[in-house]
Amino acid sequence: MDRKENASTAGPKGVLAAVLTPMDEVLEPDHKVFAAHCKRLLASGCHGLSVFGTTGEANSLSVNERLSALEALVESGIPAQRLLPGTGSCALTDTARLSRAALEAGAAGVLVLPPFYYKGVGDDGLFRFFAEVVERVGDDRLRLYLYHIPQMTGVDLGLPLISRLIDAYPGVVVGTKDSSGNRERITTLCREFPGFSVLAGTETLLLETLRNGGEGCISATVNVTSRLARRVHDAHAEAKNDEAEALQERLTHLRASIEACPVIPALKQLMADLTGDKKWCNIRPPLSELDEKSAKKLLSTVPLAELL
Amino acid sequence: MDRKENASTAGPKGVLAAVLTPMDEVLEPDHKVFAAHCKRLLASGCHGLSVFGTTGEANSLSVNERLSALEALVESGIPAQRLLPGTGSCALTDTARLSRAALEAGAAGVLVLPPFYYKGVGDDGLFRFFAEVVERVGDDRLRLYLYHIPQMTGVDLGLPLISRLIDAYPGVVVGTKDSSGNRERITTLCREFPGFSVLAGTETLLLETLRNGGEGCISATVNVTSRLARRVHDAHAEAKNDEAEALQERLTHLRASIEACPVIPALKQLMADLTGDKKWCNIRPPLSELDEKSAKKLLSTVPLAELL
Repeated sequence: MDRKENASTAGPKGVLAAVLTPMDEVLEPDHKVFAAHCKRLLASGCHGLSVFGTTGEANSLSVNERLSALEALVESGIPAQRLLPGTGSCALTDTARLSRAALEAGAAGVLVLPPFYYKGVGDDGLFRFFAEVVERVGDDRLRLYLYHIPQMTGVDLGLPLISRLIDAYPGVVVGTKDSSGNRERITTLCREFPGFSVLAGTETLLLETLRNGGEGCISATVNVTSRLARRVHDAHAEAKNDEAEALQERLTHLRASIEACPVIPALKQLMADLTGDKKWCNIRPPLSELDEKSAKKLLSTVPLAELL
Repeated sequence: MDRKENASTAGPKGVLAAVLTPMDEVLEPDHKVFAAHCKRLLASGCHGLSVFGTTGEANSLSVNERLSALEALVESGIPAQRLLPGTGSCALTDTARLSRAALEAGAAGVLVLPPFYYKGVGDDGLFRFFAEVVERVGDDRLRLYLYHIPQMTGVDLGLPLISRLIDAYPGVVVGTKDSSGNRERITTLCREFPGFSVLAGTETLLLETLRNGGEGCISATVNVTSRLARRVHDAHAEAKNDEAEALQERLTHLRASIEACPVIPALKQLMADLTGDKKWCNIRPPLSELDEKSAKKLLSTVPLAELL
């Protein structure tokens, strides 16, 4: 199987939300609100849903909490093939278990962080981690996306490592979410690894990534910008270049208006406002709700009518 | 209860090993070898054992793997009161569960990392994390030690945060392991928080920390330097100042000879050599065994007769 073929059969692509995890009063994932939010995102233009990533506070959840939230989501009727769950953790056994569960649930793939406790471990140790995950899942239906977000992990997934993983596991290591914010890196990934799915970690780079041959974006702010992000995608797909650029500019502005605050609390605040459900603000430590002043400022600067 | 009293009743103090976790062929903790190693460490001078820290690859283990290894250790006859298990993780629910289990097993205390996935979250979020752990354990027998190791966590446990936690949970937040390597910080902690147990993260600072009013050290290399480290401690306790200094100098040299390699693989290599059990080299990714050349160099430079 060559890489091109893999990529064309691998899902998801286009506009993906890095989905927020709503929580109840005791900070447990609220499965009902979660499912409703996922359905709304699919209805408002998302091609797919990357649940349990950084935005989803996945590493603030136990493995069992992640497993039961995923199960509840699929049971609620969300098509598993639209899901790209994050299964990253520091522990090989946890990542293997979460990845196997996602595969068995029918998810399109898994988004895997490098192990992020130890720093400066070198490419051999990182390679061995991903290799062990693939071997332990032991199923060639696995589609593994490498999650690069060095500002959180403190770990660099360098291009030589990515190349080595693609070569060792063709058809399994099929893509990456790149949240480095490094445009040059994203362009290089698209160019150097044809057939490998490159998804930018922000919708600010959506059009640019699509034009460079990437597959789209997986973004936190898409929790509220999905409609507009989808329009950028579709205008590009229809080769309406000027329209795509104008829409991208609006999208970039919209994201910037949210990014002035810490993004995850800001998005939860916006969801609380948009849905009228104050529980949306609940967030696990070490993250904190926006304080009242920041919340007011956010709601006064973000063009709410443009959201969702 | 004033702080002085808390500290004098809180265990453990003196020389503590940050205990290695031996692993079998499939990289599962080897409970039998683990218990034997812990018994040897207690017999060779360790006052206490900090299992499941950075050296113990705790964050490379799942919660269940940590729980069953702890249970097996206590069942093997290791006195639980000599244990200070690491219970840190990114997830509040995991840390609370591990801490409660350690308390129920009879451990002297728990060593807790700040949540280390998110960066730059601010003191309020960190305070809330530790506060939630204390509240969720919900037992005033809990003795919580703050684990400061910013080179791994990327999180700073600043003095204002520590002060706030001591004030909020007197008798519960009772100490810290400081692996920053920052001597000035350790001195300041000893001076600013009387009655708060300060343990240096390296035996290189053992004598200095004891002289400054700290309680001792918790160190990776104590897995093989415990005899000598204990002699430093005892010479200090007996006010044999010159002897203590001479021994500390030997200890510092001994540690330096090991630190030339990545410490955890080097210690596992040394244990393999000292026990004749090659399985001691097994290590979970992202850490890697020493390559043959480094292992040879290590074994030729470290004075093996001084170890254990």
